[in-house]
Amino acid sequence: MDFKNELVKKSTLINRELEKYIKNDECPEKVLNQSMEYSLMAGGKRIRPVLILASYELFKDDFEKVLPFAIAMEMIHTFSLIHDDLPGIDNDDYRRGKLTNHKKFNEATAILAGDNLLNYAYNLIINDIINNGEDKDKKLQALKELSFGVDRMIAGEYVDTEFEGKEISSQYLEYMHENKTGALIKASVRIGAIMAGASQTDIEMLTFYADRIGLAFQVKDDILSEIGDSKELGKPVGNDRERGKCTYTTKYGLEKAQEMLKSITEEAISAVSEFNNSDFLKELALYIANRNK
Amino acid sequence: MDFKNELVKKSTLINRELEKYIKNDECPEKVLNQSMEYSLMAGGKRIRPVLILASYELFKDDFEKVLPFAIAMEMIHTFSLIHDDLPGIDNDDYRRGKLTNHKKFNEATAILAGDNLLNYAYNLIINDIINNGEDKDKKLQALKELSFGVDRMIAGEYVDTEFEGKEISSQYLEYMHENKTGALIKASVRIGAIMAGASQTDIEMLTFYADRIGLAFQVKDDILSEIGDSKELGKPVGNDRERGKCTYTTKYGLEKAQEMLKSITEEAISAVSEFNNSDFLKELALYIANRNK
Repeated sequence: MDFKNELVKKSTLINRELEKYIKNDECPEKVLNQSMEYSLMAGGKRIRPVLILASYELFKDDFEKVLPFAIAMEMIHTFSLIHDDLPGIDNDDYRRGKLTNHKKFNEATAILAGDNLLNYAYNLIINDIINNGEDKDKKLQALKELSFGVDRMIAGEYVDTEFEGKEISSQYLEYMHENKTGALIKASVRIGAIMAGASQTDIEMLTFYADRIGLAFQVKDDILSEIGDSKELGKPVGNDRERGKCTYTTKYGLEKAQEMLKSITEEAISAVSEFNNSDFLKELALYIANRNK
Repeated sequence: MDFKNELVKKSTLINRELEKYIKNDECPEKVLNQSMEYSLMAGGKRIRPVLILASYELFKDDFEKVLPFAIAMEMIHTFSLIHDDLPGIDNDDYRRGKLTNHKKFNEATAILAGDNLLNYAYNLIINDIINNGEDKDKKLQALKELSFGVDRMIAGEYVDTEFEGKEISSQYLEYMHENKTGALIKASVRIGAIMAGASQTDIEMLTFYADRIGLAFQVKDDILSEIGDSKELGKPVGNDRERGKCTYTTKYGLEKAQEMLKSITEEAISAVSEFNNSDFLKELALYIANRNK
């Protein structure tokens, strides 16, 4: 398997599918829809929806069945980024090298675009459940995972805002990331596995994998925020330290953070080693650890 | 039927039920949960959940079945108010005589509390569908109505922000209100009727009723914003005109707005006249038109 090739294939599929859900009819709220499209199509890595597909494909081939969940997940991730960037939270002007939603449009639009993306995600899944009668119970279970993931993501985000600029215990730092970044990643692999009818043991194994790559993702983010290339990242570097933000690098130092990243990634890889066809998930763990943006 | 008595009975039931869903365990996001409780319990009139109950009770007695939807609806309404009050949208300091969420807590908390209430609403319905197996299809249809209502409510809210301080055509003004205030009111009666297994004709009749009381609600709000008692309302009066906000009173004048309110209310009452037990819905239409806050 050529990992890069497969990743591009999957994320291209997600992008093409996302476009089908873009509303571009003439209506009084046209600009709101444009702002949702702007952030949805701002070049995200599509890690979460890719994880839904990859987790499903460990067990089954007909990945079309999980596409609505993949799309919903990316909408929810985008909603969380738009709100995270708001002046009332992180007050960021750029993301992925582009103006943030509230800078490109305005604050009211960004608040409502985020709200609407979260709602749209639910709306499309509900319509899928109603219109495609089969697998209703599996879909409801997967939807429950999605909803729980969002709840935890918001909790993590809240803890992040509450402790900005304050000393934070390693217990709280972990709780924050486990939820803020980890919850949707965990929900993604669980949704894929649940939809594929995986056994409870397999779901738990994949959950552990997700837990590890979620943490790896955050540690790597913190490392890049400190020593990454601001051009590649599309956002300024060194902001976290200036803001007194508590991250893995500001708390443990760069060297220790890099060691952590390495061992966490190894744990993730070993968790999925028992599955056939787990090459993609293994490579994905390495990709997260080695990325430059 | 003593209307006031029945209204108090229903809204008390909603309040008691809402309390069951308040999270007050010790956890890092405790303050976020407190802020959600603060706004949920800030003394709303509970019109939307009451409408779900009343619409259901036109056809059936076992109202417990629609309680999860009633609770979810009030959470969603509260989410919309919290975000509406934010500095980036209406920038209001008071609502119902109490500090708005972002004034009592802070902006980040208010954004996330709103997000979390919207998500919580879906979460509780999904859990209800999974845990109480019966009426799955009706519940999914009702959930679709809820989701569509939220989509339309956000669209209306957006149009409101886009046209603040600008001249607005009567067509746009109507579109805005039909969605911003009307969509959740319409969704409420439809959810009640769908859950009760009402016929399509009955659902349409109730939808027209909801459309009329939604409009009446808005016209009355605009009238109160102009000539109400700021103490009773719990917020300043005359703000709309100062802000150049386009409302029914600033656009048509007070007298015409009052005439409109009267005839819209009559239309609402006549729409439900064919139902037995429609006294409560008729009185509710009058209550909306005659309220002082």
